[in-house]
Amino acid sequence: MSKVVAIDVTDIRFPTSADLDGSDAMNPDPDYSAAYLRVDTDAQDEHAGFGFVFTIGRGNDVQAAAVRSLAEQLVGREVEPMLADLGGMWRELVYDSQWRWLGPEKGVSHMAVGAVVNALWDLRAKREGVPLWQLLARLSPAEIVDLVDFRYLTDALTRDEALELLTAAEPGRAEREATLFAEGYPAYTTTPGWLGYSDEKLARLCKEAVADGYHQIKLKVGADLEDDKRRLRIARDAVGPDVKIAIDANQRWDTAEAIEWVNALAEFDLAWIEEPTNPDDVLAHAAIARGVDPVPVATGEHAANRVMFKQLLQAGGAQVVQIDATRVAGVNENLAILLLAAKFGVRVCPHAGGVGLCEVVQHLSMFDAVALSGTTEDRMIEYVDHLHEHFLEPVVIENARYRAPQRPGSGAEMHAASVQEFTWTPAG
Amino acid sequence: MSKVVAIDVTDIRFPTSADLDGSDAMNPDPDYSAAYLRVDTDAQDEHAGFGFVFTIGRGNDVQAAAVRSLAEQLVGREVEPMLADLGGMWRELVYDSQWRWLGPEKGVSHMAVGAVVNALWDLRAKREGVPLWQLLARLSPAEIVDLVDFRYLTDALTRDEALELLTAAEPGRAEREATLFAEGYPAYTTTPGWLGYSDEKLARLCKEAVADGYHQIKLKVGADLEDDKRRLRIARDAVGPDVKIAIDANQRWDTAEAIEWVNALAEFDLAWIEEPTNPDDVLAHAAIARGVDPVPVATGEHAANRVMFKQLLQAGGAQVVQIDATRVAGVNENLAILLLAAKFGVRVCPHAGGVGLCEVVQHLSMFDAVALSGTTEDRMIEYVDHLHEHFLEPVVIENARYRAPQRPGSGAEMHAASVQEFTWTPAG
Repeated sequence: MSKVVAIDVTDIRFPTSADLDGSDAMNPDPDYSAAYLRVDTDAQDEHAGFGFVFTIGRGNDVQAAAVRSLAEQLVGREVEPMLADLGGMWRELVYDSQWRWLGPEKGVSHMAVGAVVNALWDLRAKREGVPLWQLLARLSPAEIVDLVDFRYLTDALTRDEALELLTAAEPGRAEREATLFAEGYPAYTTTPGWLGYSDEKLARLCKEAVADGYHQIKLKVGADLEDDKRRLRIARDAVGPDVKIAIDANQRWDTAEAIEWVNALAEFDLAWIEEPTNPDDVLAHAAIARGVDPVPVATGEHAANRVMFKQLLQAGGAQVVQIDATRVAGVNENLAILLLAAKFGVRVCPHAGGVGLCEVVQHLSMFDAVALSGTTEDRMIEYVDHLHEHFLEPVVIENARYRAPQRPGSGAEMHAASVQEFTWTPAG
Repeated sequence: MSKVVAIDVTDIRFPTSADLDGSDAMNPDPDYSAAYLRVDTDAQDEHAGFGFVFTIGRGNDVQAAAVRSLAEQLVGREVEPMLADLGGMWRELVYDSQWRWLGPEKGVSHMAVGAVVNALWDLRAKREGVPLWQLLARLSPAEIVDLVDFRYLTDALTRDEALELLTAAEPGRAEREATLFAEGYPAYTTTPGWLGYSDEKLARLCKEAVADGYHQIKLKVGADLEDDKRRLRIARDAVGPDVKIAIDANQRWDTAEAIEWVNALAEFDLAWIEEPTNPDDVLAHAAIARGVDPVPVATGEHAANRVMFKQLLQAGGAQVVQIDATRVAGVNENLAILLLAAKFGVRVCPHAGGVGLCEVVQHLSMFDAVALSGTTEDRMIEYVDHLHEHFLEPVVIENARYRAPQRPGSGAEMHAASVQEFTWTPAG
């Protein structure tokens, strides 16, 4: 038996706003940040567990305070029982009645649960000597459903239905794992499309994306319709007719405006419209999906929890489900969301970028490809080319596909030197 | 001109779990708490502005950190321009793109905005020498709509429609204000109904409620159906056929269970079923409302923002709207919710109790009675009889009605001695 002997939480901020990387219609000047958690034990193996919450600057101190407040409860606890029952651990943290009041199950407090849960998963995968995706994809269907809490989901997905989906995908796991190692998982790139970039930079980056083998790129839209048309024309000219172009409004519109705006851009053959309006607005997403059909609506990076995803699927508000590694309460809740998407037959194309989101979320998509949906068809993980160098195992893109990570763990661990260099301290 | 010269945030916790006051199916042992903000200026008048977020214990430190992080941005700013444009101030705080990422517009970060906004309202009302409800109810319709942000609302309520509602209610304001001073605003009581109380205590408190003149009481339910039946029988016997009994499940059920459970209790003539399921689940609330009709569904104390309220109203998921003084981003967002409720013709019966929720939320209902819905019919504010003594102007209930507060301000200010006595410090 080993015990948690220490936790350490760091407020890490990268000064990305200086370059307008990550600029969009709602987020003009993000400073990509992470509230970063390290969990140490007294085991001889010297493995530590890492988890984090991605934020975009101001407030990362508050997120760090939340992670710290919650993670401190782990100190002194025996590790093995926690790692052996991460489903129970999830319930314990999410349904702590006093803590839950702060959300419930949303925002700062819920993301803090995610960081703690993910750090425990990181530790477990390291102890088992496998990357997280492989650990998950080798669990039995019964073990997987034990990780998921079906409270508030049963009107759309029961435990038995989830078990059925996982059991149906059991044959072929080994072959799909081998294929994943050989071929990787498809990616699309957002690198060309930030709002702050000049037309020349946009055209150049679009051409580079095609040269790099991407089959889809994504452009930020929503600040000005004529600008959007011009930029989409530049992009379409640069990539040609066979590469897909998705657009992302980052919550900019109300329902009527969204429908009008997207339809005005439909001539550019859109792969999807992402986050057309407020992420809490299930009914608006459904209305927009009807109004812009056949352009699919994609959303999820700001969907607060599994209950929001459930409703988006029930109402037809999401034709593309975009999970995020750190928005919900960690691996377990993302498993619930993957199961919901599978039940509704909707494809999952994760949100990534930021700090470490690519590194962590790829594990969930790869689990899904091996052990749940069993396919990578029409699915892809977002890819943005920055800040990867700070991670112990940066994602590797080959032929526009994520290479399957092989290092034991969840992908969340950063270089100590990076943590030190970008630790934020208040001015003055 | 004056400037903000200091802010002070206190983590206040009352050890309420010792008495099982406040115990329900989801919250067995709350320690009623407040992240309490004081804003000081260099004006000669010596008025300070107070706001707070109510929580139930663990995590109040995180909520306090969020309020502090946000409020510190006010230090050094000129006061008068902020107070003269509290609509603009609301937008500035809510749409700060970096801060917004932490929600968006929900949970810890959004409630922190509420504390700051409410402290500014408290300061403004003190400077104008009137209680907040009267300040609001004497603004022109145009001034009121300027306080509200209609982004994400226009598919249900436009600025023009809001203006129309307020203008239609302008005649008679003075008479309704006089009536309110004379008669107060109706209350109902939750004091008898906490799950942790014995049957004897329940019966005694029910009889006391009737003797005190209440026309409605509320019981917590959802832990055990047979217990609920027994407790409802005791309550109904104690209050007789003419007093209404509402029940509150505090998010305990999934959809099917909610419908079955409530229908099994329908014989007790229920005034409403409150929070039958997860507060984010608009579609489930709507399904439950259809399934338990004619029992009305009441919800809102955990609805994260105006977008959630809008959907609950659009989907028919709430026949009773329960605003909360500190769950959303302050007075301005609650004005938006009151306008939405008025548009849909749904009655508002605020959630209260906790720490200071009665003291603050009464101002919103009284504004509504004078200047928006223009009525108190079938409306009432929750009342729970504890912790009021800590406030400078504790609510006064006479004949089961809230007496209209007269002290300038929002009702949020606590006695310095109480703040000092119940300031929480971490154990060890």
